[in-house]
Amino acid sequence: MTIITLLTDFGQRDGYPGVMKGVIWKIAPEVQIADLSHEIPAQDIQAGALVLGRSAPYFPDGTIHLAVVDPGVGTIRRAIAGQVGGQYFVGPDNGLASVLISNAEANIQTYRFVHLDNPKYWRRYISNSFHGRDIFAPVAAHLACGVKLDEIGTPISDPVRLEIPLPKRTADGWIGQVIYTDHFGNLASNFDANHISQAKKVLIRINGYTIPGVVDTFGQKSAGSLVAMIDSSGRLAVSVVNGNAAEFLGARIGDRIELEIVG
Amino acid sequence: MTIITLLTDFGQRDGYPGVMKGVIWKIAPEVQIADLSHEIPAQDIQAGALVLGRSAPYFPDGTIHLAVVDPGVGTIRRAIAGQVGGQYFVGPDNGLASVLISNAEANIQTYRFVHLDNPKYWRRYISNSFHGRDIFAPVAAHLACGVKLDEIGTPISDPVRLEIPLPKRTADGWIGQVIYTDHFGNLASNFDANHISQAKKVLIRINGYTIPGVVDTFGQKSAGSLVAMIDSSGRLAVSVVNGNAAEFLGARIGDRIELEIVG
Amino acid sequence: MTIITLLTDFGQRDGYPGVMKGVIWKIAPEVQIADLSHEIPAQDIQAGALVLGRSAPYFPDGTIHLAVVDPGVGTIRRAIAGQVGGQYFVGPDNGLASVLISNAEANIQTYRFVHLDNPKYWRRYISNSFHGRDIFAPVAAHLACGVKLDEIGTPISDPVRLEIPLPKRTADGWIGQVIYTDHFGNLASNFDANHISQAKKVLIRINGYTIPGVVDTFGQKSAGSLVAMIDSSGRLAVSVVNGNAAEFLGARIGDRIELEIVG
Repeated sequence: MTIITLLTDFGQRDGYPGVMKGVIWKIAPEVQIADLSHEIPAQDIQAGALVLGRSAPYFPDGTIHLAVVDPGVGTIRRAIAGQVGGQYFVGPDNGLASVLISNAEANIQTYRFVHLDNPKYWRRYISNSFHGRDIFAPVAAHLACGVKLDEIGTPISDPVRLEIPLPKRTADGWIGQVIYTDHFGNLASNFDANHISQAKKVLIRINGYTIPGVVDTFGQKSAGSLVAMIDSSGRLAVSVVNGNAAEFLGARIGDRIELEIVG
Repeated sequence: MTIITLLTDFGQRDGYPGVMKGVIWKIAPEVQIADLSHEIPAQDIQAGALVLGRSAPYFPDGTIHLAVVDPGVGTIRRAIAGQVGGQYFVGPDNGLASVLISNAEANIQTYRFVHLDNPKYWRRYISNSFHGRDIFAPVAAHLACGVKLDEIGTPISDPVRLEIPLPKRTADGWIGQVIYTDHFGNLASNFDANHISQAKKVLIRINGYTIPGVVDTFGQKSAGSLVAMIDSSGRLAVSVVNGNAAEFLGARIGDRIELEIVG
Repeated sequence: MTIITLLTDFGQRDGYPGVMKGVIWKIAPEVQIADLSHEIPAQDIQAGALVLGRSAPYFPDGTIHLAVVDPGVGTIRRAIAGQVGGQYFVGPDNGLASVLISNAEANIQTYRFVHLDNPKYWRRYISNSFHGRDIFAPVAAHLACGVKLDEIGTPISDPVRLEIPLPKRTADGWIGQVIYTDHFGNLASNFDANHISQAKKVLIRINGYTIPGVVDTFGQKSAGSLVAMIDSSGRLAVSVVNGNAAEFLGARIGDRIELEIVG
């Protein structure tokens, strides 16, 4: 049974995600649908790309990721679908698939995309503001039914890719930044385990605080402690044990994190 | 595979929607369940009726809409179920089905309702405060299993209907109002495309601002612009491109919108 | 078709519950998944245990409750699974299953638990901060596929149990407390119908207000009235008819509620 995931900035109050499920199940009554998030901050493509990129690896081959964070809806931005490794992406061509693509490259997997230009697989009437319902949901459902990428659109080689900022080398370490804050207030950085493993001992500096090294688990420090740890997605994150680091530090996406190698 | 949609004002914290799924799947293990919304403002029947009315058309025939915004639970308000066009409604008799019924009338479809007075299709013990769990969910599940409307209740001809306010004609146009604000801060009005198509050129006035005409897509104006557009449900809506019109205008449901025909 | 319920404090923004669905469906593609809540307050085990305990009775035998409110993740706290009556629990050994166990005891049902110490049923790589994904979700999925408790872990006899506070007897009644506040602001107490049925007439005192007796339904009082009622879970609750008692009374979990027997 194929899985379609949904990731949007629609919120859960107005019925928009439910309507996409109606459209999908009308075409493909057997698919399983997993909501990844409908609480991506409005128009925040980078947050959507990051959540999608770190969630996809836990889904089986054949999963179709239907992602709609779409500030350009109704403009000339393309609608696209693609195969990335063993999974599929359907959504606007605005960078939402960036982390999926980067992950595929890192894992030496192939990807290919098509421009959704075949209205045969859309709803008949296309609104100018809800392509999630009118184009992306029916295309995802048809893919789940076995329609091939080549039937739903024309191959393209240049899907839009976001630059997720990379850390910069300094004399004694790296300068990185907060790229995602989650529900618990954990601050994910653009450092990963490789940045840490290069050093015996590191200091992490953020918003006036210095964290002496990286712990393996929350349990190594008492509740309320500010810690740095490799998170469940493989990124270096700053957390407060059983607390909220974003609140404690007044930290936001884009805030600077320094990694100083001291041994 | 039958679909049951859920629309409530229960929120998603306390387990109430999940419990309804348990009750449904215990009776009808194969149905697909689509959450439309559990974030309808508490006791706001009109908001529930509007979300239900604009979502239902995207679901297949046979879909059962289980809707519980129920300030009168435990009083003499009736519990009802009905067939509206090719779909079903189950919920309190308080106007929640109003927009479904109006849509059916506009599309020259029939509808019929029954008073849920046959306890055979309820849970055995009926609480006084959670009929969603004790009456509506099991009735919806039995409908999904093929039980007929006539078996679950007694026909009625007078389901409660809300008056969704209609625009009023003026010397040079119409006076309408905001009837729904969504997650993005878009302000849906009680004008539809017909009000607009009568005029070559219109001005839209709201909360001290005048919007010069109706755009086809957000992309015709730059980010931050206040625009009027026919939304994905066919209503005239006021929006800020990639922004939040409700916040920008300090606008709320019931606020006056004037449509002035100037050409 | 087996049902797995999900109850967490993960929120719905970051993709964590969706990822657990991916892990589950990869192993057990046919299971139905019902979200009970992902909005349990962060690290609030008691709230999680209460929501789980009052929701479970509405699910069929064989249902697997996957619950992750897990402040001790990555420490020596055990991971457990158990059969409680006819249903299953999978989660951390921190008291989350307490109300399930108490309910089983009250209904003279048996329960047994195992320590999840067989990595054969986990994901290969185990993070230190997301056992919901790496241990609990795959174990729940394997249980749904028919794997036996004895295969996934070693029997234990001492699952951690929370003390949900009980009312104390006074000269003229009882002193209890608010143990849960829901989305509507209803204040559930640790009194149940038995405390009330012992008296002909009671007064309920909370935060300076006195409520004269218990009503059967909201409909017996007008909108805005402060009432006490047995709620849909069988607990005495304080509510405002069509309003919000938590806001009205400024009440919180732990606040004292007195029950005075006057006849």
